Amino acid sequence: MRNLVFRISYDGTAYHGFQCQDGQITIQSELERVLKVLTGEDLRITGCGRTDAGVHAIRYYFNVHTNSPIPCDRFVLAMNSLLPSDITVSDCREAEEDFHARFSPKYKTYVYRILNQRNPEALLCNRCYFYPIPLDVEKMQDACEVIIGEKDFKCFMASGGQVKTTVRHVTELTVTKKGAEVEIRISANGFLYNMVRIITGTLMQIGIGKMTKEDLREIIDNKCRKEAGMTVPPHGLYLYDVYY
Amino acid sequence: MRNLVFRISYDGTAYHGFQCQDGQITIQSELERVLKVLTGEDLRITGCGRTDAGVHAIRYYFNVHTNSPIPCDRFVLAMNSLLPSDITVSDCREAEEDFHARFSPKYKTYVYRILNQRNPEALLCNRCYFYPIPLDVEKMQDACEVIIGEKDFKCFMASGGQVKTTVRHVTELTVTKKGAEVEIRISANGFLYNMVRIITGTLMQIGIGKMTKEDLREIIDNKCRKEAGMTVPPHGLYLYDVYY
Repeated sequence: MRNLVFRISYDGTAYHGFQCQDGQITIQSELERVLKVLTGEDLRITGCGRTDAGVHAIRYYFNVHTNSPIPCDRFVLAMNSLLPSDITVSDCREAEEDFHARFSPKYKTYVYRILNQRNPEALLCNRCYFYPIPLDVEKMQDACEVIIGEKDFKCFMASGGQVKTTVRHVTELTVTKKGAEVEIRISANGFLYNMVRIITGTLMQIGIGKMTKEDLREIIDNKCRKEAGMTVPPHGLYLYDVYY
Repeated sequence: MRNLVFRISYDGTAYHGFQCQDGQITIQSELERVLKVLTGEDLRITGCGRTDAGVHAIRYYFNVHTNSPIPCDRFVLAMNSLLPSDITVSDCREAEEDFHARFSPKYKTYVYRILNQRNPEALLCNRCYFYPIPLDVEKMQDACEVIIGEKDFKCFMASGGQVKTTVRHVTELTVTKKGAEVEIRISANGFLYNMVRIITGTLMQIGIGKMTKEDLREIIDNKCRKEAGMTVPPHGLYLYDVYY
């Protein structure tokens, strides 16, 4: 049996997240619907992770086991012609039999985009979190070193996350100003539920002067979700890439 | 009576164009609905031009006569809080009594965005025209000089346009490659119906080698719409700015 790995992008605005849910249209349900049309098989795909409703993906990977003889490059063309235009396939290749999109990643990178100006901008409405209070990007950037490293990030996990350990290794965390946009980029070997959105909300508290770098250190030590910042909305979040 | 001029942006994807049409949701109908909530008046706004369904605007201007005492900066905040997030107001100011958003412009600039790569891209799906055949941007750019100037552009007018004269002055026309995107930028003292989309379609014929710069010269001389290229889709088109 072939094990195919696909690289896709999606605009999450119109979907109830990646994963199949009864009666809801999700990225996964659209992909499996189209794969059934192409292969005639009832395939179950394995995504590299769940994304919530409204979250986007620049490079998302999934794998699927199939008996279909369709060549990889034809899969790309055929899927793009059948999928809605807010889900696109950019690559398909043969993988080792044991490749597993969810368990094989070494690390992942997410980007969170904030539009930090006085007025909102129509063409970024589902793409950036509009936040009119000026953010001190230097202070936010300076605080990043407190988060970088292998730590227990229980304080940045939303309730509902079920995991054996809340220790993760954050290898990269930067805050950059690009015109009126503030971009937060974070890489780690794994992420807890809503971790990027809570880290972003916490860094924003620092950016408006309601929290300090020392507070952040204590919050992590105390492992208390309530002390951290709010969970910022999903539409500013992008799964940027996954590294296997 | 005050004459207020507003600068707005919109993502045209969800609307039946700018102008009010019975039973359809348009940019104008949304703006007038919100202005009624704020002023209590049945106001009729004057836009700087019509845009078709799916066309976007980076900087669009309209003016409106009102007796409302609301200060300009409060209008901006209040309208942004009441409008759908894909229509945003970035400025409001007092204008001379005879200022007319439609008749006063000296010239306007449009941008047309083409995604010119093998596969489509989800996050650009309603923002760029996806066109997988490679375009020769140098040839397209070289042909621009044939269009620039004050000429009769009847060949670039869709049927349905009702105008006294089809002479317009194109002051700027450039074709630029930005990564996988090809961007066409055009400024003129006025535009015929679908003119930008037909010029783009014609330049693309040159970009794929199906038409030459000399053909283009003849098409303009012959004033024949049928000889020009196709009308490319609306979702790649942006009203970029209007100069008064």
